[in-house]
Amino acid sequence: MALINENYRKLQAGYLFPEIGRRVAAFQKAHPDARVIRLGIGDVTLPLAPAVVAAMRAAVEELATAQGFRGYGPDQGYEFLLDAIVEHDYRARGVEVAADEIFVSDGSKQDSGNIQEIFGVGCRIAVTDPVYPVYVDTNVMAGRTGAIGADGRYQGILYLRADPGNGFMPGPPDAPADLVYLCSPNNPTGAVASRANLEAWVAWARARDAVIVFDAAYDAYLRDPALPRSIYEIPGARECAIEMRSYSKRAGFTGVRCAYTVVPKTLLGSTSAGERVPLHGLWARRQSTKYNAAPYVVQRAAAAVYTPEGRKQTEEQIAYYLENARCVREGLLAAGFRVFGGEHAPYVWVQTPDGLSSWDCFDRWLSRAHVVCTPGSGFGAAGEGYVRLSAFNSRANVEEAVARLTR
Amino acid sequence: MALINENYRKLQAGYLFPEIGRRVAAFQKAHPDARVIRLGIGDVTLPLAPAVVAAMRAAVEELATAQGFRGYGPDQGYEFLLDAIVEHDYRARGVEVAADEIFVSDGSKQDSGNIQEIFGVGCRIAVTDPVYPVYVDTNVMAGRTGAIGADGRYQGILYLRADPGNGFMPGPPDAPADLVYLCSPNNPTGAVASRANLEAWVAWARARDAVIVFDAAYDAYLRDPALPRSIYEIPGARECAIEMRSYSKRAGFTGVRCAYTVVPKTLLGSTSAGERVPLHGLWARRQSTKYNAAPYVVQRAAAAVYTPEGRKQTEEQIAYYLENARCVREGLLAAGFRVFGGEHAPYVWVQTPDGLSSWDCFDRWLSRAHVVCTPGSGFGAAGEGYVRLSAFNSRANVEEAVARLTR
Repeated sequence: MALINENYRKLQAGYLFPEIGRRVAAFQKAHPDARVIRLGIGDVTLPLAPAVVAAMRAAVEELATAQGFRGYGPDQGYEFLLDAIVEHDYRARGVEVAADEIFVSDGSKQDSGNIQEIFGVGCRIAVTDPVYPVYVDTNVMAGRTGAIGADGRYQGILYLRADPGNGFMPGPPDAPADLVYLCSPNNPTGAVASRANLEAWVAWARARDAVIVFDAAYDAYLRDPALPRSIYEIPGARECAIEMRSYSKRAGFTGVRCAYTVVPKTLLGSTSAGERVPLHGLWARRQSTKYNAAPYVVQRAAAAVYTPEGRKQTEEQIAYYLENARCVREGLLAAGFRVFGGEHAPYVWVQTPDGLSSWDCFDRWLSRAHVVCTPGSGFGAAGEGYVRLSAFNSRANVEEAVARLTR
Repeated sequence: MALINENYRKLQAGYLFPEIGRRVAAFQKAHPDARVIRLGIGDVTLPLAPAVVAAMRAAVEELATAQGFRGYGPDQGYEFLLDAIVEHDYRARGVEVAADEIFVSDGSKQDSGNIQEIFGVGCRIAVTDPVYPVYVDTNVMAGRTGAIGADGRYQGILYLRADPGNGFMPGPPDAPADLVYLCSPNNPTGAVASRANLEAWVAWARARDAVIVFDAAYDAYLRDPALPRSIYEIPGARECAIEMRSYSKRAGFTGVRCAYTVVPKTLLGSTSAGERVPLHGLWARRQSTKYNAAPYVVQRAAAAVYTPEGRKQTEEQIAYYLENARCVREGLLAAGFRVFGGEHAPYVWVQTPDGLSSWDCFDRWLSRAHVVCTPGSGFGAAGEGYVRLSAFNSRANVEEAVARLTR
């Protein structure tokens, strides 16, 4: 008899975005003339940069010829992309990462969901609250948690409250944890980890032989050059951190699909008998057994992001979205809202007016302003009383949404 | 302290293809003038079909425009591709599969590796021997096995010997099993499941509430219209089988990456308390949590395989590879080798001459004929004494390889 993985039954039934979609569809059906502006799901809207398009075109033409055709690619990614990552994302910031410590993939969602597989089922997980739900749900599926409580928190996970008091970037806990997920710039709050915050985390992890999964999917939105783009800018991080970066928001790749994960060869885990084991080999084995590298055309597209034209064009896209974020942030601030994020991130985190719950605010904004946000409570108990607004839309729509919300 | 997943330490150290690569590189270094012909790894060699290239070109141009740009796609795949699959892969064969029972992905390797996640860790696995290693290794990683024995078999897995006596297609076992992996046309043996064989499996699975994972990644190579292309051609299979198909070998997509998995809504698993639960919802949750659909350009490429031009062009590619397989098969047969497969599959399975072990045959063929094969023992204990030859190469190389091997 085929038994199911019963951990799946611990998961909350309604995932956030399907529920948003349901409510928006119902509203639109009841009000067919309303022009709804969607600042909910964080999906890019600008077309691909010309340099990226040119690279994809050329790659397609290669695959059309006997000489240029490529089948299976190298397990960890093509050298042309790995070398560009080493040079531009790391060496240019004074950080040394070897090409064979990088694993190209089809998304940071996948990587941040899969990374837990190389750890023991007994590892105690720590996450911030609010949090990107993938970190939590994939650990629930793997059996690292108990049941969910009335507060929406799973037994066995250590939740670190992110709030205005800690700038939505909690520091290391006193309670024990073995594997912690950090995301900076943060989804959903738009907060950014300072150098001091990351230094504290690295010191904490090294003292406990814990591992940090550092999700830097939004690093391209950092404006202040003093802010760390990579956790490896912090001394000692190579001994305690795995890092993930993505082209999704950096270059509009949400439908192209490319990202990468760095597992330093100096990063060790432990067996229950106390033997120290490099995690690099475990992740390499996981990827070579269950994955097959990103498509050639996609890897060529990603490499084009690092060309002079590609960098200029994608920087312009990021500047466009950040100007949107500024419009939202400053527009709502001027109207008296309490607002966070949106300076080094494409997300603005807004305290709901009049003490509304996240979903009540969602419903009010949808019905009165025809603007879709994302209820903060969908990201965790501590997200209650907030909503997330995304900067991924046209300038005109963003300005119109702000005008409606502040009217 | 971050504990590792110690199940990884049960895995055999040297994976097959890296070891082949090492030996070929060493030979080539010692004999720089030798022209080595690679019939080892099963990777396609013909360029993409013109219809596929045209679709990819058009999709890239769409992404370059504000109107045509697409970000995140639907979780299970675009409707244009799902509908083409329903129509051409199923309805044309008299099989009804609903579009929302299909999950588009980036590869059958991924799908066949990930599918075990939705089952309980206590499920007993059955595989054929020899077998595609991904089925076994992913279950080892998940903790469904004990240690590996001296015979290369893991404790806790039920191995079903595939040999000339059963046409390399074993029938259902008497011993208990909950989840069985079947692959037809088979990798590595090139054998094909008859209708009667699949009927026996479906009856067996239904009687035991077991689940069949049917890997039909090579179905396009079936020449005899009487042979089932889909397990759903067998009555009752919708209640016991998950099916996987791929564009990798069907349309040369090994570097493009597209496949799909069907989980019928009528297929149930069980909780330990005996409650019956649809597997469709579990897989949908798994995919929406850990995956993000195949790239838009790739899904457009896959849909082009179903156009009249695409079907004609990819059929020509398959015919080309099958003619290669015929050359290998008949050439070796005529020279007195004992040969299997290669009629409805791109693989020819050859008994080693002179009672050589698989690796000794590999070394002899490499050193004397400069031909690379894949040692059958790499696919399991019962593969010892065989080697696999792939039809994925140019006609000239295949003919030259056969001439050298039979000299």
